[in-house]
Amino acid sequence: MKSKLSDLQKKIKRLETLVDTSLAFSSILDIDELLNLVLQKAELVMEAETSSVFRIDEKKKELYFQIARGKKGKEAKEIRVPMGKGIVGWVAEHGKPLLVPDVTKDPRWYKGVDKKTKFVTRSIIAVPLVSKGKVIGVAEVLNKKGNRFFNDDDLELFTALGNQIAVALENASLYKELDELFLSSIRAIVEAVDAKDPYTRGHSARVVSYALLIGESLNIDKESLKELEISAILHDVGKIGIPDNILGKPGKLTEEEYAFMKRHPEFGAAIIEPISKLRMLIPNILHHHERLDGGGYPSGLKGSEIPVSARIICVADSFDAMTTDRPYRKRKSISAAFTELKQCSNTQFDPEFVEIFIEQYKNKKPLAETEQ
Amino acid sequence: MKSKLSDLQKKIKRLETLVDTSLAFSSILDIDELLNLVLQKAELVMEAETSSVFRIDEKKKELYFQIARGKKGKEAKEIRVPMGKGIVGWVAEHGKPLLVPDVTKDPRWYKGVDKKTKFVTRSIIAVPLVSKGKVIGVAEVLNKKGNRFFNDDDLELFTALGNQIAVALENASLYKELDELFLSSIRAIVEAVDAKDPYTRGHSARVVSYALLIGESLNIDKESLKELEISAILHDVGKIGIPDNILGKPGKLTEEEYAFMKRHPEFGAAIIEPISKLRMLIPNILHHHERLDGGGYPSGLKGSEIPVSARIICVADSFDAMTTDRPYRKRKSISAAFTELKQCSNTQFDPEFVEIFIEQYKNKKPLAETEQ
Repeated sequence: MKSKLSDLQKKIKRLETLVDTSLAFSSILDIDELLNLVLQKAELVMEAETSSVFRIDEKKKELYFQIARGKKGKEAKEIRVPMGKGIVGWVAEHGKPLLVPDVTKDPRWYKGVDKKTKFVTRSIIAVPLVSKGKVIGVAEVLNKKGNRFFNDDDLELFTALGNQIAVALENASLYKELDELFLSSIRAIVEAVDAKDPYTRGHSARVVSYALLIGESLNIDKESLKELEISAILHDVGKIGIPDNILGKPGKLTEEEYAFMKRHPEFGAAIIEPISKLRMLIPNILHHHERLDGGGYPSGLKGSEIPVSARIICVADSFDAMTTDRPYRKRKSISAAFTELKQCSNTQFDPEFVEIFIEQYKNKKPLAETEQ
Repeated sequence: MKSKLSDLQKKIKRLETLVDTSLAFSSILDIDELLNLVLQKAELVMEAETSSVFRIDEKKKELYFQIARGKKGKEAKEIRVPMGKGIVGWVAEHGKPLLVPDVTKDPRWYKGVDKKTKFVTRSIIAVPLVSKGKVIGVAEVLNKKGNRFFNDDDLELFTALGNQIAVALENASLYKELDELFLSSIRAIVEAVDAKDPYTRGHSARVVSYALLIGESLNIDKESLKELEISAILHDVGKIGIPDNILGKPGKLTEEEYAFMKRHPEFGAAIIEPISKLRMLIPNILHHHERLDGGGYPSGLKGSEIPVSARIICVADSFDAMTTDRPYRKRKSISAAFTELKQCSNTQFDPEFVEIFIEQYKNKKPLAETEQ
């Protein structure tokens, strides 16, 4: 009777872990953070040394690490496991959980990962992550502490946890797909606007990559970087409101035409206005032609009055204008454009962003350059 | 000892319910369906007569039903409970769970809902739905069956379930917000393209509402209706590629200009092409100017060769063109436009969609009409 009671108490502890972890899925936005939390709890309750989550690369028929915990996690992350190979490969292919008390005695055991990470796997539980009847990944725990082996209770617990992980992954994927749809849609439409003038074809895409070169070296959070990206995509969306004969004029604009052209940031702001979730980005779009000395447009803002993202986009935008042909002038070389950016630092451009941009450009040679 | 054992077994059953329900959150897309499932399980385990989930309307400081189960659910759904009022109002305001074994003895009890639904509440458990430290709603179970009262075990179980419900609601909200951002963004940009020609201002928005009038009366699933909506928003996006002097010409187009204008469906298809998640909508956009008799463009498709959504958008698009002014002619009256739609059924338009459109337009008088 006593042992039955303690068994039940143990069972309760395990179930409570499952209930607890389901609370950990508090947001689909930080999926890696959540998975880490869940795996950490699993390791604690199951007394495991480490744990991982694999995803499936359908095209390459390979498994790759979404999360690899423990001291050797960093080394492990580089590794890809072929579908069907090893214990995780078997679980992915068969869609069934597997408890291997001693891996050295299992013919499916694949030494590849241990060899590269210098981790020694003894026992393993691997469970399929199934969403809508489809295996989307595998979760595993490795090595029960104190030289013991995993047992059926561990298997049952980890299988249930695997179901929760699959739900979280699926929801995160749905969110990510929709986010990509949003970004690719505004990108595609803006590209069509760029393409109206053959001289600005690809302009917005290049400005995005230049602005992100700067943004990524600043110590800003993901959310702010995303806002910078969306602002950069949309910085010239107001050109929809500029007539073709001004936009694509094969020659210098008259004063009147130029005055109208200068209204594109306002028009952009007006287009964004009805999109409540993007409204906070309006200042970035409205002020991307301001100058640090107050001589820009539309508002003549000075220095730090100009939003950070607008100052970044200004550098990115000007660099792309300098390094692409215009009907009335040839493009500058990259180094001549760098010189001009430096010369106009403090008057037109924020010197900090000019410096970062030049350094990053030299380091990374952004992809977009080849598209020019 | 025996009673302790059965207590533990009972506890296990409850915990298993929690684990099970967390699996029910398998998708953030059908939140109402999921909540229904979870509440149904809760009723079963807690032997409750019915249950509900309330959301908070921050602006109006009211609670409204997201889900109201049971025979009186339909009547209940109409009701709104002021913040702080009644038991659910108290729970929403204080962010604390509440077990009221006998509501007639609780001064907080608010008879409003029972009066309207003719449901008799005896006992109640209400728990706050908390996401990121903020109360976003309240879940409640009503009336333990067999004239018994709810107890502390029920309260504990339902509090844990409330946490899971809050997670699901939060994730569903995040997804919904992003979806709205996507739709409102493409809508806003397309509206700016429409507005280049004062004669087509608001055109795409009206075509969307007309197309949905038809789509909503067909027996199609949510997903297909969404695809129709996105196709209708984007049907004229290719006009970005049509020069202003053709698009806004104050008079009839020359043959050459008209030939170019007729390329806008192709241009639209080309804009959508890079957006992988929208690629399946290209035929709807490409073929919205086909005619049932094969005399349309760009491909001269006939009858059922023309995608259903393209046939629907064609009716919606033509009706809006007829009922708005053009530089070279005044708009037709609604009834004259109906006559023309009928006359051109079978040759230009799908007669089924014309019939549905006219019937639905007469019934519902779409909002967009007043914006003309």
